[in-house]
Amino acid sequence: MIHALDLLLTPRTVAIIGASDAPERIGGRPLHYLLKHGFKGDIYPVNPSRKTVQGVKAYASIADVPKAVDCAIIAVPAALVVDTVRACVTANVRSAILFSSGFAEVDEEGGAIQTEIQTIAAQGGMRLLGPNCLGVLNSSIGWFGTFANGPAEVDIRAGGVTGIVTQSGAYGSHIYMAAQARRVGIRYWVTTGNEVDIDVAEVIEFYARNNDVKVIVAYIEGVKDGAGMRRALEAARRARKSVIIMKVGRSKIGAQAASTHTASVAGKDSVYDALFRQYGAFRATTMGEMVDLAYACQFGFFPQGRRMCLQTISGGAGIHMADVADEEALEVPPLPDDMQSKLKALIPHASVRNPVDFTANAVNDPELLPRNLDLTLSSGLFDGHVVYLTSVPGSLFTRASCLEGLRRIRAAHPDAMIVMSMLVHDDVAAE
Amino acid sequence: MIHALDLLLTPRTVAIIGASDAPERIGGRPLHYLLKHGFKGDIYPVNPSRKTVQGVKAYASIADVPKAVDCAIIAVPAALVVDTVRACVTANVRSAILFSSGFAEVDEEGGAIQTEIQTIAAQGGMRLLGPNCLGVLNSSIGWFGTFANGPAEVDIRAGGVTGIVTQSGAYGSHIYMAAQARRVGIRYWVTTGNEVDIDVAEVIEFYARNNDVKVIVAYIEGVKDGAGMRRALEAARRARKSVIIMKVGRSKIGAQAASTHTASVAGKDSVYDALFRQYGAFRATTMGEMVDLAYACQFGFFPQGRRMCLQTISGGAGIHMADVADEEALEVPPLPDDMQSKLKALIPHASVRNPVDFTANAVNDPELLPRNLDLTLSSGLFDGHVVYLTSVPGSLFTRASCLEGLRRIRAAHPDAMIVMSMLVHDDVAAE
Repeated sequence: MIHALDLLLTPRTVAIIGASDAPERIGGRPLHYLLKHGFKGDIYPVNPSRKTVQGVKAYASIADVPKAVDCAIIAVPAALVVDTVRACVTANVRSAILFSSGFAEVDEEGGAIQTEIQTIAAQGGMRLLGPNCLGVLNSSIGWFGTFANGPAEVDIRAGGVTGIVTQSGAYGSHIYMAAQARRVGIRYWVTTGNEVDIDVAEVIEFYARNNDVKVIVAYIEGVKDGAGMRRALEAARRARKSVIIMKVGRSKIGAQAASTHTASVAGKDSVYDALFRQYGAFRATTMGEMVDLAYACQFGFFPQGRRMCLQTISGGAGIHMADVADEEALEVPPLPDDMQSKLKALIPHASVRNPVDFTANAVNDPELLPRNLDLTLSSGLFDGHVVYLTSVPGSLFTRASCLEGLRRIRAAHPDAMIVMSMLVHDDVAAE
Repeated sequence: MIHALDLLLTPRTVAIIGASDAPERIGGRPLHYLLKHGFKGDIYPVNPSRKTVQGVKAYASIADVPKAVDCAIIAVPAALVVDTVRACVTANVRSAILFSSGFAEVDEEGGAIQTEIQTIAAQGGMRLLGPNCLGVLNSSIGWFGTFANGPAEVDIRAGGVTGIVTQSGAYGSHIYMAAQARRVGIRYWVTTGNEVDIDVAEVIEFYARNNDVKVIVAYIEGVKDGAGMRRALEAARRARKSVIIMKVGRSKIGAQAASTHTASVAGKDSVYDALFRQYGAFRATTMGEMVDLAYACQFGFFPQGRRMCLQTISGGAGIHMADVADEEALEVPPLPDDMQSKLKALIPHASVRNPVDFTANAVNDPELLPRNLDLTLSSGLFDGHVVYLTSVPGSLFTRASCLEGLRRIRAAHPDAMIVMSMLVHDDVAAE
């Protein structure tokens, strides 16, 4: 049996209801992006007044589409949504994405229509994403079931292992782009909006069971199904996946805004803190923290303990790192005396206690860094190494030798957790 | 009378003692960078064994240089520093930068030599920067008295109003590059190292009195002259300049590392907290926070009170912004009823209370944003506006109309504090 979210995230046949010939319109964008990104499945634009849409043969109604549709995008005004959902159910569409807004997030009348949609889909066995959402994407097959310009207009990083799920579409779009800029490879992206059917918890659980996903990033305004969320977090924990969550609505005004956005109930904040802690999910407080963590987790190296070896080309950064290690309850044990003596022989003016400051001499002698690292890595005394290199690996003068040394170290210590801090252009970081 | 720091930061004649023909060596880099950046002053390389260095006529000793030298860079091994400093004093050099390390930060013997250097320079009336520092730069005249590759290899942003001063050279180099990447325009950069003479406090005070500087960024490991630091912060406060400080050495291991780095005494952390608070200096805790603040402060718009109007294309971001405003004790008062009605007429499905969520409709109607903003800006009810636009100003489809609308708003409200959050390419942000 195919999981409902596989139909939504890896469809073979898609329909776009309300498809527009103008690529900049909300109804025109998904088709534009699918064509641009070379989506390999069948695409059926539905538009009663056109023979073709953006050059693709169009159909007057969903009933006219010749194949069974795995996923239909519904991009019609709110007033037409009920009839469209009914038509999809009749046509045996298996899942649908509802872009349209103007439902429970606006008023009671909207809420009643939303319930009607929900009932029609549930009775017809059609899974629903939204309404009031920006859709989905699966970067590995060029599936852009979204009108969000952000994710669709940036370059895709192949082979991503991160799955993003977000109640807010535009915020989710921002997460996508910030993560992409931070060199996070993103596999799946799902925006759930008002969640009449598929909710954040179901998507987290799907990611937990999906072998392509190693890192799960979620943005949550409110959780309706507490038990479902517990089940999802438990599944992710069992599968040893990294879960990074932004839960907003901590403040009174924030919680109020959540109710008029995706009609969410923000809930008691301390309950979420406890829930996330219980299942080892990390609660981020800024966008930057969220994407930094996703970046770090995607490589799959995790320390087994708290003993850190700090190495630095900047004594100042060594002090700052030691301060932060202390705040995070990490240990920075001094190097054994014999190792300090060996390092002292390599770098006469260096601090060798831990943090190890190999000073600006590393600029003149490219072998300092790999020798240093080889000594401390081989000792087995540390659970992780943090190495601060600032711009040296990117400098015209030191780039080649520095990167060569680092590659040698990685080859000699393939399983060691080594965090490198450098300020370099993208192409250097990529090596 | 010319201020000593003017000689150091805006020299007309410079000597490089220990100048190397190899541009990648520490003694070769300053000359390489000066030539590359078109420094207009006179440059005198000093090297006893060469006629020219990197194509520039060289002199056997500082005594042979034909003009009075405003600033000499001393790039010689530690063992030669005492004699070199003495020769500079004899030759009436007015200020000198000491790159060399191996002094008080290493051991007592080094400390004694450092004291000797200090005495020779003080008696001869020559100002000293360092030792154990990376030098200085003044981007407005192409003066790169540094061997730091980072600042010298990035593009310079013209017209910067930020002055950076840092005890750690490599950390300071990182600040420079992170700030530059964040679109902070940097005018001056000074690294003070072991501070035998010029210290962070003197540079802060210089920046406070310098009309080209509006934002002061400082990295501090320890303060030897508390009264001098108070005077400097007081001067900056009187001149209404933004002061952003990173003070490290909070932890025991961090403080220990500071003593072996620039021989600093970190001191009691709470004392620094109180000192910075007293003079309105902001104490940053991360590099990101430091450069974000420098970026925001350089435009010179500051709110007169705490009432914020939050506007957003993402309801999710609205909630997050409201949470953060609450944490920072900012007010997010509801819009008056008549204004809510007007906005409701513009955007049927929007939240109009505050945060104002103009929803994805802004994608279809480029006039929504400027109309919205014009209404709330004209009301005079708010001390600041924060507008979250994510990628819309950068999208192929919306870029032109969106930027045009924003320019109109800025022209109509030239003095309003408006913070824009957008995720776009550099060229778009620049407009």
